[in-house]
Amino acid sequence: MEPNTESLPDYLKNEFAADRKLVEAALDRITALTPDRPNRLGRAIRYAVMGPGKRLRPLLVIAAVRACQGSVELALPAACAVELIHTYSLVHDDLPAMDDDDIRRGRPTCHVEFDEATAILVGDALIPLAFETISSSELPTDRAIACVRELAQAAGASKLVGGQADDLSAESAVGVRSVEHLESIHLRKTAALIAVSLKLGGLVSAAPEEHCRALEEFGLRLGLAFQITDDLLDFDGDPVTMGKRGSKDGQRGKLTYPALLGAEASRQLAQANIDQAIRELQPLGDSARRLVAMAQLVAGRTS
Amino acid sequence: MEPNTESLPDYLKNEFAADRKLVEAALDRITALTPDRPNRLGRAIRYAVMGPGKRLRPLLVIAAVRACQGSVELALPAACAVELIHTYSLVHDDLPAMDDDDIRRGRPTCHVEFDEATAILVGDALIPLAFETISSSELPTDRAIACVRELAQAAGASKLVGGQADDLSAESAVGVRSVEHLESIHLRKTAALIAVSLKLGGLVSAAPEEHCRALEEFGLRLGLAFQITDDLLDFDGDPVTMGKRGSKDGQRGKLTYPALLGAEASRQLAQANIDQAIRELQPLGDSARRLVAMAQLVAGRTS
Repeated sequence: MEPNTESLPDYLKNEFAADRKLVEAALDRITALTPDRPNRLGRAIRYAVMGPGKRLRPLLVIAAVRACQGSVELALPAACAVELIHTYSLVHDDLPAMDDDDIRRGRPTCHVEFDEATAILVGDALIPLAFETISSSELPTDRAIACVRELAQAAGASKLVGGQADDLSAESAVGVRSVEHLESIHLRKTAALIAVSLKLGGLVSAAPEEHCRALEEFGLRLGLAFQITDDLLDFDGDPVTMGKRGSKDGQRGKLTYPALLGAEASRQLAQANIDQAIRELQPLGDSARRLVAMAQLVAGRTS
Repeated sequence: MEPNTESLPDYLKNEFAADRKLVEAALDRITALTPDRPNRLGRAIRYAVMGPGKRLRPLLVIAAVRACQGSVELALPAACAVELIHTYSLVHDDLPAMDDDDIRRGRPTCHVEFDEATAILVGDALIPLAFETISSSELPTDRAIACVRELAQAAGASKLVGGQADDLSAESAVGVRSVEHLESIHLRKTAALIAVSLKLGGLVSAAPEEHCRALEEFGLRLGLAFQITDDLLDFDGDPVTMGKRGSKDGQRGKLTYPALLGAEASRQLAQANIDQAIRELQPLGDSARRLVAMAQLVAGRTS
């Protein structure tokens, strides 16, 4: 997200940079090579997790924690858990039997750098690692179990995995190519994990239910806006700045917002979702200003 | 395990049959087709989970609960969670990039019956479903979070997934083909999940730490014995009674106990592990008799 942080006030810029360092350090500890993990598998896990990435989801967990006056320290395991789930989903989505991508964030994908079996196992290891990270943390047990439950649902067959299944079947589907259909895919595939990031921030902070719900609704709208800007970047993008093959989605006949609506209407739809997202934050009052800033970053992102 | 229950006293035979029905009914509820899961994915999940299977791991959870005078009702979610993890590991192990098996328990494997992408997604959905099942249960939060932690570790890179990674690299490895190496693979790949089944039974029942430890040690030895008898069945077996291709492991040059030690020494090693397993149960006294009976079933199993 660096390219756009210019527009932020200095204190927020510094805060995001500091939070990101905390996240990187925590992920580094969680994925450290240890003698009890097979070496090649351990290296592949680090390759997937410690590569370049925006760390958007953990930063959203922490921004929600700050909005709820919670403890950032206590929230780090949940923040990392969401990133581990996100990372596994990228590794598996890139597999030959799925989206068959060779390049991700400017580097060979995990199955290209290692091999297909290892990439499958990396994903298989990252999912339980996410739940191990939350359940081994210092969180009070009632908050920890709520985080496990919410993250497990968001990662499951009706959300993240269901969205990927829908997305794959939409490639071959003829007919049902409406905005509603596309939104239903991405509410599952992208928005659910972004929404749960926000909600975990509330749960970790023992925030009132009304605030947790507002955070989740904010996350769903933000997630949709994020997906639309992602589609737009893929549509306009070239492989060098994108770090993955430009317009591969289009070549594959994948259903995207710009393909369905055109670029201009897609941009408007992204902005409408950002506006709606920011309205959802009303119950949190002024303490939500970091979340508003992050929503504006997503709206204006160029990478 | 039916073929061998003849040797059991009637009350145990009836108890195992009743417990198994409880497990089947609970798995049926957990994997019910719902409108929020994509239909094909939902059907594939049910195909994988509700197929024929011994349900050894959930029955071990429940046997441990009975040995600890715990509540079977309260233990069912944890029992099902272990079975979901076991099922995912079979679906992914069968994939073309892994063991490439077409037949499992007499039926086409998940990626043959559906397709490879769906089989990957089935596994990806079953792992969070296991943790959702525990964290949505009626268990007191401290016991639930302990179960999440133990199961997540057992399913992770240093245990279940690490064992599969080791097993795949052992196929291509030249040289290191010792019993110690084979035991280190199967302590991870097979025994860890069987051991955690027993330990979860203790945790759910809030059993004293000494009993939980004894249950886990029993499980590790039982798990090794189970793997050795599995190798022996594959070595002797024919595809009809086995439900999978006979001696495929041998054809693939996979490291197995009979290939390394011969059949007779393998049988002796299995029995030695069973004997050791039963000795580990000493702290539990007479209440462990169901576990002793299950260990004897594993020792004499023919399927």
